[in-house]
Amino acid sequence: MTTAPKSKHIPRATIQRLAIYVQVLENLARDGVEVVSSNPLAEACGVNGSQVRKDLAYFGEFGVRGVGYRVDVLIAAIKNALGVNREWRMALVGAGNLGRAILNHGDFRARGFNIVGVFDCDPFKIGEIMHGLEVRCTDDLPACAPELDIQMGIITTPPERAQRAANHIVEAGITSILTFAPARIKVPEHVHVEYVDFFHHLYALAFAQTQGGRA
Amino acid sequence: MTTAPKSKHIPRATIQRLAIYVQVLENLARDGVEVVSSNPLAEACGVNGSQVRKDLAYFGEFGVRGVGYRVDVLIAAIKNALGVNREWRMALVGAGNLGRAILNHGDFRARGFNIVGVFDCDPFKIGEIMHGLEVRCTDDLPACAPELDIQMGIITTPPERAQRAANHIVEAGITSILTFAPARIKVPEHVHVEYVDFFHHLYALAFAQTQGGRA
Repeated sequence: MTTAPKSKHIPRATIQRLAIYVQVLENLARDGVEVVSSNPLAEACGVNGSQVRKDLAYFGEFGVRGVGYRVDVLIAAIKNALGVNREWRMALVGAGNLGRAILNHGDFRARGFNIVGVFDCDPFKIGEIMHGLEVRCTDDLPACAPELDIQMGIITTPPERAQRAANHIVEAGITSILTFAPARIKVPEHVHVEYVDFFHHLYALAFAQTQGGRA
Repeated sequence: MTTAPKSKHIPRATIQRLAIYVQVLENLARDGVEVVSSNPLAEACGVNGSQVRKDLAYFGEFGVRGVGYRVDVLIAAIKNALGVNREWRMALVGAGNLGRAILNHGDFRARGFNIVGVFDCDPFKIGEIMHGLEVRCTDDLPACAPELDIQMGIITTPPERAQRAANHIVEAGITSILTFAPARIKVPEHVHVEYVDFFHHLYALAFAQTQGGRA
C-alpha cells in the first residue's frame, strides 16, 4: 500500500484518534480479524462512524464499499502516514521507578520506540544495568547520542531535574522530547515537547465526580 | 477564599490548562514566590496572558491590578474549583512495573490522590507487600471497596486484562477510572474513564519529526 497522505496538515485531535485506531486495529489483528467496517471500528474506538471515515480519508481511499477495511492494510497505512512504520531510537533520562517501568514496558519496543540509552546524574545509579543497558552519566548524553543514533529523548526525572535533562537532550541535537516530569520545560523552538500529565486526567475525573455529586 | 466557580461547565481544554497552572504555581510556591502576574505565569505555562486571565475568570476575580495574583490563594481557588482540595482514595489494579512506579510516585499522594488498595489476579503477586499495601485478589475488589472507601480506580494491567479490571471496578460501585492499559474499555454511561496514552504522544512526536524532515 503506497497511498500517500492527502494532506500534510493532520490536526492534533486526528493524530490522537489515529493512535486509538491503531491500538484497536492491532487488538483486532491479534484476535484474527482480517476485515472491519467503519461502524464497528468506530464503536470499538468510542467515536462515530462518520468521524472514522473522515479521519481515514486523510490517507486516500481504503475502504471497499460493502466490505470494509483490510485490518493489516489500514494499520500499515496509518503508521506510514504518522511516520511510525520504522524504528525510533530513544534515550531515557532518569533511571528511577518510572524510568524502569517504561524500560520494561514491552509495548514501546513492539511499536518501534526502542530505548537504546539510559542516563542518570546519580553516581549510585551510573554503571547499574537496567533492562540490559548500562546507566550512563547524563553529562555524557551529548557525546553518546550520535554513536547511539538517538532521535528522541524521554524524561522521567523528578520535576526539579527536568530542565537540566532537557538541556542535555537539546545539546545532544535531539529534537523530540517526551516528558513525564510534572514540570514545564523550556526548549528552543525547533524542539518538540510532549507532556504526559497524569494529573490533568486525575483532575478531570475529580472535577466530573464532584460536579456529578457522587463524591 | 470562598469564591465559587462562575460556571459549572468548565471546558476540558481549560481543565487541562488549570492542571498546568497548578503545577507551575506549586513550583513557584516551592521557590518562595508569593505573588505572580498573569504574563509571567502565562509564559511559564506556555500559553498567552489573555488566555490565563480568561481561564482564571471562571472562578471570579483574584488578580489585583498592577500587583498580580497571590500564589497560595490562586492554587487553593483552582483546586477548590476542580474538586482536588481533598483526599481521593484510589484502588490500583495491576501490580506490575507500571503499577509499582505509580505507587512509588510521591506526587500522587502529595496531591491528594491516595492509593489505598492494590489488586492483581496473579496468585504469585497476591499477598505481596507493595509500598506498604498487601496485594489482594482483583475478585475481592467489590467486597473491599466500601471498607476502603475507594472513589477512583487505576488500571495498570496488560491490555488483554483491562476490560476485566474495569468490570471489577464498576462492580465495586466506583465511577471514575484512570487507565494506563493500551486498550479501549467499555463501561456504563455513568462511569468516567480517562486514558493515559503514551503512544499518542510518541506518534505526535514521530509525525512532527517526519514532517520536519529531521528524521
